[in-house]
Amino acid sequence: MVIPDIENPHVSTLIQKTQNYAHQSGYSVILSITNNDVELEKKYIETLLHKGVDGVIVNHTVDTRGKKYLQELVDEGIPIVLLGRIEGLEIDSLLSDIEKGVYLLIEHLIKLGHKRIVFLKGHTTQYRVTGYKSALDKYNIPVDENLIIEHGQKLEDLPGIVDRILLINPRPTAVFGFNDYLAIGLVTLLEERGIRVPDDMAVVGLDNINLSKYARVPLTTVDLKPDLVAKGSIDLIINKITNGKNNGYKFQSITIEPEMIIRQSCGRLIKSI
Amino acid sequence: MVIPDIENPHVSTLIQKTQNYAHQSGYSVILSITNNDVELEKKYIETLLHKGVDGVIVNHTVDTRGKKYLQELVDEGIPIVLLGRIEGLEIDSLLSDIEKGVYLLIEHLIKLGHKRIVFLKGHTTQYRVTGYKSALDKYNIPVDENLIIEHGQKLEDLPGIVDRILLINPRPTAVFGFNDYLAIGLVTLLEERGIRVPDDMAVVGLDNINLSKYARVPLTTVDLKPDLVAKGSIDLIINKITNGKNNGYKFQSITIEPEMIIRQSCGRLIKSI
Repeated sequence: MVIPDIENPHVSTLIQKTQNYAHQSGYSVILSITNNDVELEKKYIETLLHKGVDGVIVNHTVDTRGKKYLQELVDEGIPIVLLGRIEGLEIDSLLSDIEKGVYLLIEHLIKLGHKRIVFLKGHTTQYRVTGYKSALDKYNIPVDENLIIEHGQKLEDLPGIVDRILLINPRPTAVFGFNDYLAIGLVTLLEERGIRVPDDMAVVGLDNINLSKYARVPLTTVDLKPDLVAKGSIDLIINKITNGKNNGYKFQSITIEPEMIIRQSCGRLIKSI
Repeated sequence: MVIPDIENPHVSTLIQKTQNYAHQSGYSVILSITNNDVELEKKYIETLLHKGVDGVIVNHTVDTRGKKYLQELVDEGIPIVLLGRIEGLEIDSLLSDIEKGVYLLIEHLIKLGHKRIVFLKGHTTQYRVTGYKSALDKYNIPVDENLIIEHGQKLEDLPGIVDRILLINPRPTAVFGFNDYLAIGLVTLLEERGIRVPDDMAVVGLDNINLSKYARVPLTTVDLKPDLVAKGSIDLIINKITNGKNNGYKFQSITIEPEMIIRQSCGRLIKSI
């Protein structure tokens, strides 16, 4: 199993569940962490194959260029399953529908009366952006680029992010916090600056990590169903390992539906409606 | 690298840093997660060796019985480094001094006037217990077994733990929260029950995870120096790989000094002094 980054506890959960399902089927999982480095990813996949693993589950890097070698490996009959989807490749894949998850969260905020919703963009795939923009579009709210904040997806970026948010004029009323891990820290920093959550500012996360229920303000978030992703990826890879490159085999592309979890961090209808 | 559990973000940090140092020296790291299962640990080590890895860094299970096979592997010349220490084995090892870390935290609480300090015990090695008891002993505070709470080290255990704490009579004034991950959740649950941290109850963690600085009440904790552990373990294993089983080689046992980080969660001198 090849993973870009394990700082987010959501990933730890995914790994543990994948390992449990593999174990139930008599397989062992070995992991490589790529630090989101395209070259390192390729090198690790080669290393693992060289070490004789039966198949590789690839949670690929954000940068999806230069991934044609994966198709070549698959065409040679090597069992590979992607977590995510790469345009143009015919490889078994499994995708948590992050785009829909973000859409649900933004729609929820809009229905509560929020129109100025900060979007923490990060440097991951486009799914979050598309979810954000399509929800605004559906409710005829123009995208304000001032509300979109780039960041490095690390807790250390939070003080700078909060500074940026508080400088936006007119003041936004809600923030999509990129993931739960960052959103939990964001709530703390906002409250330290005298901004109460959810009364002054609504915050939503993404991932539904275990800690979110026990956060200062329990987080409204989206559960990406790591259990289903783990089970699905093990089923797919074992199917590939067992059936090999049978003629007529068509690749499968499975989408996992997310579930919105409403807690306290986005409050009720805001007054300005 | 063989690891018992990756739910705690402290472990993710350790893994990433180990991988970075390995990479700088031209090595790749592959990981196996043992779920703290002695049998699985043995099986994974065998699998990794069978796959031809150059050496194995073992963060061993809590249960240290049945580990003699590690000594046999080392005697055969296989490079192995332990994170932790196992009585009776002559294997290169590296240990974060958790016992001293806990001692420092309990001593800090005692100096602030706390005498009734709850100890969340968990099911890990004895280091935490020894640190707790020796600090109490040093300051002539008898150990009260009512203050020692067993738990499964999961966030899901927290509501039960809080129930237990609030039933203790007379009410304790401080809690050693086992690790930062649990301590962060504990603070939230205590405050939900009307117990203010640190005014009504001091809380300390262990690990200094990134999130602790951004927690509802920034946590007083101990940094176990994952960077030094990562660097040290890579140095040891590469040394073993490079020098093989040279005659006269004596095994090394390195201890990493922890550092106490004082933040807001244990407040100042309490009134009852």
